Amino acid sequence: MLHILFLAALLFFPSSQAADFCVAKLKGAGSPSGYACRNPAIVTVDDFVFSGLGAAGNTTNIISAAVTPGFVQQFPGVNGLGLSTARLDLAPGGVIPIHTHPAASEILFVVYGKITAGFISSSANKINAGGTTALAIVSFNSPEPGLQITDFALFGNNLPSNLVEKTTFLDDAQVKKLKGVLGGTG
Amino acid sequence: MLHILFLAALLFFPSSQAADFCVAKLKGAGSPSGYACRNPAIVTVDDFVFSGLGAAGNTTNIISAAVTPGFVQQFPGVNGLGLSTARLDLAPGGVIPIHTHPAASEILFVVYGKITAGFISSSANKINAGGTTALAIVSFNSPEPGLQITDFALFGNNLPSNLVEKTTFLDDAQVKKLKGVLGGTG
Amino acid sequence: MLHILFLAALLFFPSSQAADFCVAKLKGAGSPSGYACRNPAIVTVDDFVFSGLGAAGNTTNIISAAVTPGFVQQFPGVNGLGLSTARLDLAPGGVIPIHTHPAASEILFVVYGKITAGFISSSANKINAGGTTALAIVSFNSPEPGLQITDFALFGNNLPSNLVEKTTFLDDAQVKKLKGVLGGTG
Amino acid sequence: MLHILFLAALLFFPSSQAADFCVAKLKGAGSPSGYACRNPAIVTVDDFVFSGLGAAGNTTNIISAAVTPGFVQQFPGVNGLGLSTARLDLAPGGVIPIHTHPAASEILFVVYGKITAGFISSSANKINAGGTTALAIVSFNSPEPGLQITDFALFGNNLPSNLVEKTTFLDDAQVKKLKGVLGGTG
Amino acid sequence: MLHILFLAALLFFPSSQAADFCVAKLKGAGSPSGYACRNPAIVTVDDFVFSGLGAAGNTTNIISAAVTPGFVQQFPGVNGLGLSTARLDLAPGGVIPIHTHPAASEILFVVYGKITAGFISSSANKINAGGTTALAIVSFNSPEPGLQITDFALFGNNLPSNLVEKTTFLDDAQVKKLKGVLGGTG
Amino acid sequence: MLHILFLAALLFFPSSQAADFCVAKLKGAGSPSGYACRNPAIVTVDDFVFSGLGAAGNTTNIISAAVTPGFVQQFPGVNGLGLSTARLDLAPGGVIPIHTHPAASEILFVVYGKITAGFISSSANKINAGGTTALAIVSFNSPEPGLQITDFALFGNNLPSNLVEKTTFLDDAQVKKLKGVLGGTG
Repeated sequence: MLHILFLAALLFFPSSQAADFCVAKLKGAGSPSGYACRNPAIVTVDDFVFSGLGAAGNTTNIISAAVTPGFVQQFPGVNGLGLSTARLDLAPGGVIPIHTHPAASEILFVVYGKITAGFISSSANKINAGGTTALAIVSFNSPEPGLQITDFALFGNNLPSNLVEKTTFLDDAQVKKLKGVLGGTG
Repeated sequence: MLHILFLAALLFFPSSQAADFCVAKLKGAGSPSGYACRNPAIVTVDDFVFSGLGAAGNTTNIISAAVTPGFVQQFPGVNGLGLSTARLDLAPGGVIPIHTHPAASEILFVVYGKITAGFISSSANKINAGGTTALAIVSFNSPEPGLQITDFALFGNNLPSNLVEKTTFLDDAQVKKLKGVLGGTG
Repeated sequence: MLHILFLAALLFFPSSQAADFCVAKLKGAGSPSGYACRNPAIVTVDDFVFSGLGAAGNTTNIISAAVTPGFVQQFPGVNGLGLSTARLDLAPGGVIPIHTHPAASEILFVVYGKITAGFISSSANKINAGGTTALAIVSFNSPEPGLQITDFALFGNNLPSNLVEKTTFLDDAQVKKLKGVLGGTG
Repeated sequence: MLHILFLAALLFFPSSQAADFCVAKLKGAGSPSGYACRNPAIVTVDDFVFSGLGAAGNTTNIISAAVTPGFVQQFPGVNGLGLSTARLDLAPGGVIPIHTHPAASEILFVVYGKITAGFISSSANKINAGGTTALAIVSFNSPEPGLQITDFALFGNNLPSNLVEKTTFLDDAQVKKLKGVLGGTG
Repeated sequence: MLHILFLAALLFFPSSQAADFCVAKLKGAGSPSGYACRNPAIVTVDDFVFSGLGAAGNTTNIISAAVTPGFVQQFPGVNGLGLSTARLDLAPGGVIPIHTHPAASEILFVVYGKITAGFISSSANKINAGGTTALAIVSFNSPEPGLQITDFALFGNNLPSNLVEKTTFLDDAQVKKLKGVLGGTG
Repeated sequence: MLHILFLAALLFFPSSQAADFCVAKLKGAGSPSGYACRNPAIVTVDDFVFSGLGAAGNTTNIISAAVTPGFVQQFPGVNGLGLSTARLDLAPGGVIPIHTHPAASEILFVVYGKITAGFISSSANKINAGGTTALAIVSFNSPEPGLQITDFALFGNNLPSNLVEKTTFLDDAQVKKLKGVLGGTG
């Protein structure tokens, strides 16, 4: 059984003016610094506990993998605190396609199994590797790190094929095949 | 077997000028933004992998607990990236005494077991609880979150007893007893 | 007679998008970056002047001391500007118990009298000392620095005694005595 | 023909919690981190394109110059993204009087013509120079950099002349002359 | 003739402790906040003027386009000031392949010609378009925004083809073809 | 007798990676985030106490006023902590000419006397007033706030008179008179 408990101790997010905590009012419009704070008088213990990472994600899919987020939308207690979490389940052969988190750094903690991981920098590339069923806990230094899987962004929509081809150097047949696989059109 | 792999993907620490990464030169003096960057030409895969959290910490101690840090001093790849990690091992009855992380927010991910956790805010207190052998993974939004256990800071040194008593309201006998237990004098 | 005048000159809070100033609308919900801005058309000189620090605080209390805050709640002109202030009155023998400001650094300016002050860091402890009636002006680099007096947080509420004892190493009698003094129960 | 296109690519404003973008709802109250985010479902391409810099500003004025802003108020797509732009048109002999941008650094890109530019620092002064019709593109690292022309701030209003004289060392006749030219009274 | 002049006026980079300016000593190791400051006594006007964007880049290449950077490495005056610039030359049919700037937001100012531009967000895609010889000035809110062209990062090196195929869903033939075009092996 | 004591309590500068404190090594080159940290092993109590504000500044000068700074250069303990202080002495009729602090917000605490103070914003002007011998304590949210007195920057150096006249609208006679008073030439 997995529980995630939020222990903020005496100190909190330093670059925030929010004293101690600012649980998100998810219904309202956000701002560049996050969501408005829920009235502290109605905040409860449950706002700081997130159990959504306790169950394995469904890996019966095209990538044999699942990412279960614990971002501010799922875990409103992290609003304004500058961090969030996620659970990564990988079936054998599973893969998280190349992606970016537009607003965060990331640490991947492997609980069991082996994972091949790497990152691509502007000028150098490092990649490390493994390959069995694996569970990893991911932490981010943003409550809303984003997740953009490049393939889905390029092929899972109606961007004109010739535009995609020009900006990626990919062949027309390859683009159309991936659009087919990933649900895109055009 | 536990491995920690650092997957920074395409993006990195947003409030840093450091492009992509800035592995710490731990030997030199730090600065308010962290350590100087190691020459990228000599950075290797190992700078982004930290295996130090793979083994349980020794919980045969006064608190029946162990915190194994993966801060910038142990894991230089997190320098300037705004996050770090730690492993928390709790034997039955183990406790992490009340403490602060002077420069970070914290998420506690319980891998197995049950943990009673809470935090004390300026105006409200929330505490949640459990109680068996437990393993937790901790993440911080700072490469150097600090760890200050209030008891060790107050009693494990030579601060004059009467000063400690004045600022804590504790009885003289209580202060002297704790100084004895925690190695303090004066 | 003491007045506090807010002189922001030509420049303002650098890490804010708020041009020049953003006087707090205290009625609404806050956000991680502070309160919403009052309509500039109805902002007046009084929003930037705070006279609340002109009178000595009442030091007839258990700590023979008083802290009068000039935080964003009292002084809405500091919203989003990254700083605030407070007045500290100490009667002879007065003490500010050990405390933290969860979101700020602090400078203490002694106007008259002598004050023994120090701070406890993660790895070293410095303390300096004095001892007469004293007045100090305190400045913080946050509009909402918070003030958490550890004793009040631990003993002035209904946290279960055995939980407090476990996390502080204090004896049961000591905890119950302080709960009695500080108004706590349980 | 000049167009300004907003290309935010895969990544966005790093010190913002706003995932990807946060187009400003200009009608509401701002906050220290900027305006509330418009509902992403109603955001369109036009929110990221600003054509307002395509036409030359009117330089038939006392300074023979025009600044056309592309700040968050004109270009709501930059909200929370930490940058903005402006167009500077200078007729021969035109001048932008000494000024500050209270919340931003600035880069000036000269498209054609020659411009004499400099800045005044706390301890040293650098000035470089030119002198024909000129067009420059200005970029700022804030969506709301502000623009305060010192002369207009001092003389274009009803600040008492003797106060202005005391704080500027200017002669009474000089102050009154500039108040006349710039529309001030008092 | 194009000149770029740096006009920092009275104010500077707000989230920096550096008073006024901090021209980079590029020879030394960087830090997460940028390079060490050159001794102000030896700073000259030339440190704040960058003429490298005055000449068109060479567009006789596979993408019929050229990006000329004015980042901290080329223009040391921007160190610590939170912004930088670049020049983009596009020949007819030229394209900047899909890319990220890992540490910055971006504004693209089209000086002449027409450019089709867009960005891919985590959940929505916007693209706008044109198509002749074009010149654009680019501004970033970081002195070191990075530039990572996804194709070059994936195919212009010796990453194993099967790893690239797994993380991109591309066919083996497509990967090998692009490795051939872009100089990669393996 | 005035003493300034630095009480940093348990928490420190939140947007710094520096754990607890980072006393400045003033001899070396700074960085955009401040000075390198002195070795913690040689830091003493004196690094956090600054007595330089205990004596009145000499107000026998052209402005009948004195500003005594407690910035990072005088008080190295504030390095990286995001705040600093200063003492302001005003003789009767004394004035601090219009100025900016390029990297900070400011609070002015009037200890005795009366001070007329105000600030000039981009779109509105507020000024408040008094007029006897006065002492004020100033606090800033930057260790290195800078102090730029516009008159000294414009007239106390060898900037060509015609350039100063063009950018300020001042008459030639007025500029030359002020250059004479403030030690400028040219």
